[in-house]
Amino acid sequence: MKATAVAHPNIALVKYWGKRNVALNLPAAGSFSLTLAGLTTRTTVKFDKGFESDMVMMGERAVGGPKRDRVSRFLDRVRAAAGIQHRATVYTHNDFPTAAGVASSASGFAALAAAASRALNLDMDTQGLSVLARLGSGSAARSVYGGFVEMLPGKRQDGSDAHAVQVLPEDHWDLVCFVVLTTTGEKPMGSTEAMTSTAQTSPYYNAWVDSVPRDIGKAKMAAMKRDFRALGEVAEHSCLKFHASAIASDPGILYWRGLTVELIHHVRRLRETGIDVFFTIDAGPHVKVFCQAPSRSAVRAMLQGLEGVGQILEARPGPGVQIERPDGSLEPY
Amino acid sequence: MKATAVAHPNIALVKYWGKRNVALNLPAAGSFSLTLAGLTTRTTVKFDKGFESDMVMMGERAVGGPKRDRVSRFLDRVRAAAGIQHRATVYTHNDFPTAAGVASSASGFAALAAAASRALNLDMDTQGLSVLARLGSGSAARSVYGGFVEMLPGKRQDGSDAHAVQVLPEDHWDLVCFVVLTTTGEKPMGSTEAMTSTAQTSPYYNAWVDSVPRDIGKAKMAAMKRDFRALGEVAEHSCLKFHASAIASDPGILYWRGLTVELIHHVRRLRETGIDVFFTIDAGPHVKVFCQAPSRSAVRAMLQGLEGVGQILEARPGPGVQIERPDGSLEPY
Repeated sequence: MKATAVAHPNIALVKYWGKRNVALNLPAAGSFSLTLAGLTTRTTVKFDKGFESDMVMMGERAVGGPKRDRVSRFLDRVRAAAGIQHRATVYTHNDFPTAAGVASSASGFAALAAAASRALNLDMDTQGLSVLARLGSGSAARSVYGGFVEMLPGKRQDGSDAHAVQVLPEDHWDLVCFVVLTTTGEKPMGSTEAMTSTAQTSPYYNAWVDSVPRDIGKAKMAAMKRDFRALGEVAEHSCLKFHASAIASDPGILYWRGLTVELIHHVRRLRETGIDVFFTIDAGPHVKVFCQAPSRSAVRAMLQGLEGVGQILEARPGPGVQIERPDGSLEPY
Repeated sequence: MKATAVAHPNIALVKYWGKRNVALNLPAAGSFSLTLAGLTTRTTVKFDKGFESDMVMMGERAVGGPKRDRVSRFLDRVRAAAGIQHRATVYTHNDFPTAAGVASSASGFAALAAAASRALNLDMDTQGLSVLARLGSGSAARSVYGGFVEMLPGKRQDGSDAHAVQVLPEDHWDLVCFVVLTTTGEKPMGSTEAMTSTAQTSPYYNAWVDSVPRDIGKAKMAAMKRDFRALGEVAEHSCLKFHASAIASDPGILYWRGLTVELIHHVRRLRETGIDVFFTIDAGPHVKVFCQAPSRSAVRAMLQGLEGVGQILEARPGPGVQIERPDGSLEPY
């Protein structure tokens, strides 16, 4: 009745923005991501007949309110699948700052889905786990797998075909991802609310959704061929199109801060001087900068050189969700 | 054979972005603007049989290269209409910094069209003048008129119905426009090139063009009713949609700098505290902030208070193009 799982965040190179079904987190289009090692969520779930209610601990702190309710609703699905009603205690810990703008909900719900389903001995393959994780957070479906991952939007109403698949394993290509923190300021609008507003008020939403499949095709081809420039072109275009679709909402949704924009220009200038880098930005102000392993130190120094840049986290391609054995070692789910 | 004209820039509240014909500067959609007093271009044109070539003086400096060629090609049209071949000397002066990000081509070609056509005694009403000015610069067609102005995109291939009309005179509403300069950095991509790239590579271009007529209707109604909030809503949405259409080009066209984005957030924060302001941004990094006359000083102080803000220019609704009489006084064209 107890299990521990480890999962990593992932960065979408072809972005996920828009749901065809909000309740089931069914995406309106696919997406393409890289799972990251170096940033880790570790989650233990323990079910017990004696617990009166679900308890969620993040690090040392008990979590209440909407965050706990979201976890509780998720556990209800797992309990329903197992045919039990036991309440659970969830201990979860991120080894990266929650304000990092790295979607902690992706690694969080991937680890939670894995730990909860294993604690209840559900007979579930990784595809089923990806469907389950998606119900917690759309991007969590991708963190089930390591390396380069494609999210399939599916067609069914029940979402059983809306899950991720691995395209290339994490040892395929030694990329480096810097997460450049730009601000600790105001909390941006939550993704679900912003996606809904974009879908309802942005004149660009339909064109955005229509443009995604072609980008996924390009990105997969570039990743397979290890063509860094081609991957960078499609990743930046996808990133800018996603933000543009949100900016054109009414009222406009603008996740960028000043330093975000200066970093875009900075990365472009670096590229003009012959350094292979590209950026991507999620639904927040921080900027992720990719390079290949040999230019790692140079790129880090040049990012650090920009005025206003604070902490820089560093990540590499990482594995999918793993289960902790009693001896503390990890095995794939 | 000599005349002097004075014209003012204008700020589009519903943006112009995209041409249905590049050679004739025929817009793909209409636009809606306010002509500004407080920023002035004064242009004298003198035709003389004895001149060997066109000469263009901006302030104290003779202009060569593409800028002079553009003026020369424009004068060719005026000469053709008058049936003469005399070369001309053009003296033009802006009383505002050219790097102000206020489209000096709007006031420049409006003044040039007026001075050149008057110097050659062309029988031309303001509508004909607006068509002529448009051939120099699309936005110049609007500076022919004062106050609130609508650009009609027209339907004809020859562009004879693509001209501006006055919607409301300059004394209709005492608005204030602050031009907040953000940077003296890199020169942004020219509008024509960027419009072409947007039309060819942005998946959002068609939706942008389709969205313009409705915005013009809303903006005209708001201006007529002096409904500041309604005008601000449609102006900000139009501005963000235009930038978003360009940002989604491949490669993305990003006119904003860090301070541009910080100013967007700053204006939104001011509005949340109950101050009626709105922003608009053209194809460059500077930000125009509108308020009503009574809140002028408060808004200026609050703009000046943002870190990094340098010079702030101030403008009011202004008249259309005027001709200078021999005694130096001005009369409407």
